[in-house]
Amino acid sequence: MLYDTLADELYTEICHIPLIDAHSHINPHRPAARSLDDILGYHYYTELAHSVGMDKGPLAPSVEPRERVRSILYHMAQFDNTVQYQWFIEICRAFLNYQGNRIGVADCTWLCDRAEKLMGQADWEEQVLRQSNLEKIFLTNDFDDPLTGFDRQRYVPCLRTDDLVFHLDKPEVRSRLAKATGSEFGDGAGLRRAIGSLFEHFTKHGAKACAISLPPEFAPFPVPDRELSKALAVLDGKDAESRTICSVGVFWMLAEYCRSFDLPFDLMIGVNRRIYENGVYQGHDLFDQRTSLIQYAKLFNAFPDVTFCISVLSSGQNQELVSHSWIFPNVITNGHWWYSNVPPYIEQDLRARLHAVPKAKQIGYYSDMYKLEFGLPKFNMYRRILAQVLADDFVRPRLYTDAQAVELARLLLRDNIRRIFDV
Amino acid sequence: MLYDTLADELYTEICHIPLIDAHSHINPHRPAARSLDDILGYHYYTELAHSVGMDKGPLAPSVEPRERVRSILYHMAQFDNTVQYQWFIEICRAFLNYQGNRIGVADCTWLCDRAEKLMGQADWEEQVLRQSNLEKIFLTNDFDDPLTGFDRQRYVPCLRTDDLVFHLDKPEVRSRLAKATGSEFGDGAGLRRAIGSLFEHFTKHGAKACAISLPPEFAPFPVPDRELSKALAVLDGKDAESRTICSVGVFWMLAEYCRSFDLPFDLMIGVNRRIYENGVYQGHDLFDQRTSLIQYAKLFNAFPDVTFCISVLSSGQNQELVSHSWIFPNVITNGHWWYSNVPPYIEQDLRARLHAVPKAKQIGYYSDMYKLEFGLPKFNMYRRILAQVLADDFVRPRLYTDAQAVELARLLLRDNIRRIFDV
Amino acid sequence: MLYDTLADELYTEICHIPLIDAHSHINPHRPAARSLDDILGYHYYTELAHSVGMDKGPLAPSVEPRERVRSILYHMAQFDNTVQYQWFIEICRAFLNYQGNRIGVADCTWLCDRAEKLMGQADWEEQVLRQSNLEKIFLTNDFDDPLTGFDRQRYVPCLRTDDLVFHLDKPEVRSRLAKATGSEFGDGAGLRRAIGSLFEHFTKHGAKACAISLPPEFAPFPVPDRELSKALAVLDGKDAESRTICSVGVFWMLAEYCRSFDLPFDLMIGVNRRIYENGVYQGHDLFDQRTSLIQYAKLFNAFPDVTFCISVLSSGQNQELVSHSWIFPNVITNGHWWYSNVPPYIEQDLRARLHAVPKAKQIGYYSDMYKLEFGLPKFNMYRRILAQVLADDFVRPRLYTDAQAVELARLLLRDNIRRIFDV
Repeated sequence: MLYDTLADELYTEICHIPLIDAHSHINPHRPAARSLDDILGYHYYTELAHSVGMDKGPLAPSVEPRERVRSILYHMAQFDNTVQYQWFIEICRAFLNYQGNRIGVADCTWLCDRAEKLMGQADWEEQVLRQSNLEKIFLTNDFDDPLTGFDRQRYVPCLRTDDLVFHLDKPEVRSRLAKATGSEFGDGAGLRRAIGSLFEHFTKHGAKACAISLPPEFAPFPVPDRELSKALAVLDGKDAESRTICSVGVFWMLAEYCRSFDLPFDLMIGVNRRIYENGVYQGHDLFDQRTSLIQYAKLFNAFPDVTFCISVLSSGQNQELVSHSWIFPNVITNGHWWYSNVPPYIEQDLRARLHAVPKAKQIGYYSDMYKLEFGLPKFNMYRRILAQVLADDFVRPRLYTDAQAVELARLLLRDNIRRIFDV
Repeated sequence: MLYDTLADELYTEICHIPLIDAHSHINPHRPAARSLDDILGYHYYTELAHSVGMDKGPLAPSVEPRERVRSILYHMAQFDNTVQYQWFIEICRAFLNYQGNRIGVADCTWLCDRAEKLMGQADWEEQVLRQSNLEKIFLTNDFDDPLTGFDRQRYVPCLRTDDLVFHLDKPEVRSRLAKATGSEFGDGAGLRRAIGSLFEHFTKHGAKACAISLPPEFAPFPVPDRELSKALAVLDGKDAESRTICSVGVFWMLAEYCRSFDLPFDLMIGVNRRIYENGVYQGHDLFDQRTSLIQYAKLFNAFPDVTFCISVLSSGQNQELVSHSWIFPNVITNGHWWYSNVPPYIEQDLRARLHAVPKAKQIGYYSDMYKLEFGLPKFNMYRRILAQVLADDFVRPRLYTDAQAVELARLLLRDNIRRIFDV
Repeated sequence: MLYDTLADELYTEICHIPLIDAHSHINPHRPAARSLDDILGYHYYTELAHSVGMDKGPLAPSVEPRERVRSILYHMAQFDNTVQYQWFIEICRAFLNYQGNRIGVADCTWLCDRAEKLMGQADWEEQVLRQSNLEKIFLTNDFDDPLTGFDRQRYVPCLRTDDLVFHLDKPEVRSRLAKATGSEFGDGAGLRRAIGSLFEHFTKHGAKACAISLPPEFAPFPVPDRELSKALAVLDGKDAESRTICSVGVFWMLAEYCRSFDLPFDLMIGVNRRIYENGVYQGHDLFDQRTSLIQYAKLFNAFPDVTFCISVLSSGQNQELVSHSWIFPNVITNGHWWYSNVPPYIEQDLRARLHAVPKAKQIGYYSDMYKLEFGLPKFNMYRRILAQVLADDFVRPRLYTDAQAVELARLLLRDNIRRIFDV
């Protein structure tokens, strides 16, 4: 889909680079889709269909999967301009050999049949990985994930910590933690021990990163264990102050463990959860542009030995990320996240990073995918934009040769990730 | 002025789509200009001339119109780089048959003579509408507008509510309201009845929208009538709290009436009024980029049946608008407003919307004009940018055929407006 | 490096315009570099090298300069994608006749030798100025600078006031002020007299501007001398309120003196100082995007006769600058500052200004340089972007002829500066 010859040549070369996907939501026990319903169950499709008027009826578990697919395909006619539609048609072309020009509800049966037949093959996962040139994929593991029963060289564990930081008031989280660590924590020191044992479990099982998503107003600072103990004692999810103290205190503790266990800490900054109350599953979250990375200055200063891989939710914050990464040795730019994972935003954010952030400090892209099939269209989208920017901003002005441009792409898509996460 | 052949071809096709202008300040009793003074009286010209040093003398009503025109044309030499200058020269070319390359003060007499002669024709309004391919134009009507004496099929009434929400402390507003509704309101319930009768009057007379402009800090929430009554009782424009309660309470009431009268609610978000104290008429207002659509989450959640057509004043907030429109079924992107109605901002805001907001949920453009002659250059500006973006982002990458691209343009410029506003 | 023929032709013409550099940190007693160490000592290189892992060891004064150069060149391989690398290679090509394609540590000796030889010539300063087409360069002078011993026609003094506004609590600043003015100030009135004598000294010695950099939260308002006196009496750098009163009060006083001495006031808005505590020299500062020019509304209104030349640190604030400059007659857009002095941000900020701010009210670019050699690559960067934008947005759409486009460039690079600063 690149009509610029130079960009297209660079793109072809860049596609030869084996990918390491630094962030996904793949379930390693069931990484690939088994039906079109698995593909269109991705929240992007359900929320866009809902946005143009589909009620939540078709999403009920009781509904026959093909009915759900039909309903989403029906509504897709109203959002066939979006990049999410492009991902979908590229999946259908690449993996289902779809030959048409525009997918509509009339294609439902053919696509579903085709998907079931192909995705039912024993080696489907391997086929998808091979065709997508995906070598390693980072996971998002709950803190109590046993991390067993899958190939941890291919699917790299990553400790996701939102529950620990933001939901420790919930009895089910506490009981999951107790179960995972073998003991109830009583106070700050106990919690510290519990979290330490999670880090041990994770690093023993090949985890290569700790990760969390954070709301726009989050501003971490160190909390003494005594204060944390006090706040934990009254934590009930209602008192705002104890809630904040616990969140911030646990977060700071995680950074300390990242330091002692030598794990990079992925911060995904800026999401407000549950804003659209009546949204579809995973379709409730938005953001507030009024946030600043300056809120993390204390953290970046306090942990010079921890590498912070930062994703920002709004493109408006990208310049802060560029500048912080330029100044702080321990701040890395990480991918194009969610609402900024749209071509015009990727393009402008990427251009700023390529001109102002040391190339060694950039992680180009991650898929954020739930099913392997999305790696190909999402990385293709990124690679096309990257190829065009390299052509226009580096090769044509004779700053880089073609080969140097491809080397830069290799850093962004592979070598930096290997070095930073030690994989 | 498009030098890209594909874009120019698309532009030509797009120009055939009859326009519905979803927001203007046209006076339906005197819609077209009658002189060049009417054209250059548009606040853009007076504020730009003032910005480069013209004092307010020439703007006094006592000044001979041609002197005023001469003064603005004289200062125009210092802002002939702006898009507003482009609108003006396009008006002179399209409507006055101006053939030159650069308009200066030397053209004053010719242009004024020409304008008077042509604009004095009995069918000038028809000529302008025909040449501009304008079919329907939404108005901005004061709440006490009788809405009679004009063609309401062509000039669609729209209830503008700034006075009710922000100026109810002013005796003249209260007395206008009393006169319009036939009774003084005493408390919250009375005000509710009064506003209800305005909605009845407006919808009976063909109104198709309710509209308001809002300051950056505005954050609506429901106010019980009792609290509203209390605040109304002490409202004097000085006490900040009662002022806020009244503004927010009346605003929420408007949303309730939009629901019961089935009217879309146009929110134009982000303007700070009277910032430059010594500015020319309508040239006092600016904005504060620190605002967020998250302030409207309560509203969007509370009124799933009301369609909110949102304009944002700063391009920086466009990503919030894109994301909110993608998630909330009742949020529509609406045009490119005022300080964002400038080609580089239109281009980047439009690109983001085209890639991320369902096409059925976008109103492409509105003129915001006071005189009909501005429809042509303003919509042309938008259509050129749209044609170029469609060429580069949709047709050339083979996502859309030419015909599909033009269909998308038709949605943005016409069909979505017809559906959303039921015209 | 421009591959577009039209843009390249415009660029060539634009390069003939003799430059006036409205802001630099040149030391007029030693304006040019004397070695490669002087070039790579620019904080951009030390901070980028540090950002990719160079510790501060090589930056110690005791280290042999060539060792320092070698260390920075060694680390440069990891940031050869940045615009700062481009400035450096362009300096090596233009001034040292470097012929290679990629500078690495292997070039260290040759480059150092070459630099010492060439930069040691008696007329090196003249050579650099001539080759760079630089006619006048504004300085950044401490308030107690004697302003003697250099050519003040070429190096235009400018009163920098950060110390007075933000560091008056420091004994050394007070004693410098006492020494410069010949008397200790006791209260607000005394401080007013002292600052008045600085303005007299500066304007007598050819100063053409007053300048300051400001943090994101700064919001000036008038402070009566009595209140200022009270705050000065307790000012110790710890009490936040007295600190704010003094900063704001002194700042307002500066604006008053700008009015009486008829000096433009350069405001560089948005820097947070000392954020990265362990940074290299001048590599500690960042910003918070949450700031607004609306904070300066009182100031702009209060001083209609003072010209405020505004730089913003974040590209996100550029639209506020564009709009304020469009509305306020006394607000001028000034250059592309620091973290926004990166091609993608310059391009988008420039495009918005060219389409929406009167051309008479724009100062295109300033170098911010510490050594003369940086004028050439930095202005070239800007001129290339300017030429491309003029080609794409003005000449190709036939809004401007080539000659008119070059005239616009002349305004931005020279004529506006001459008029605004009276040089």
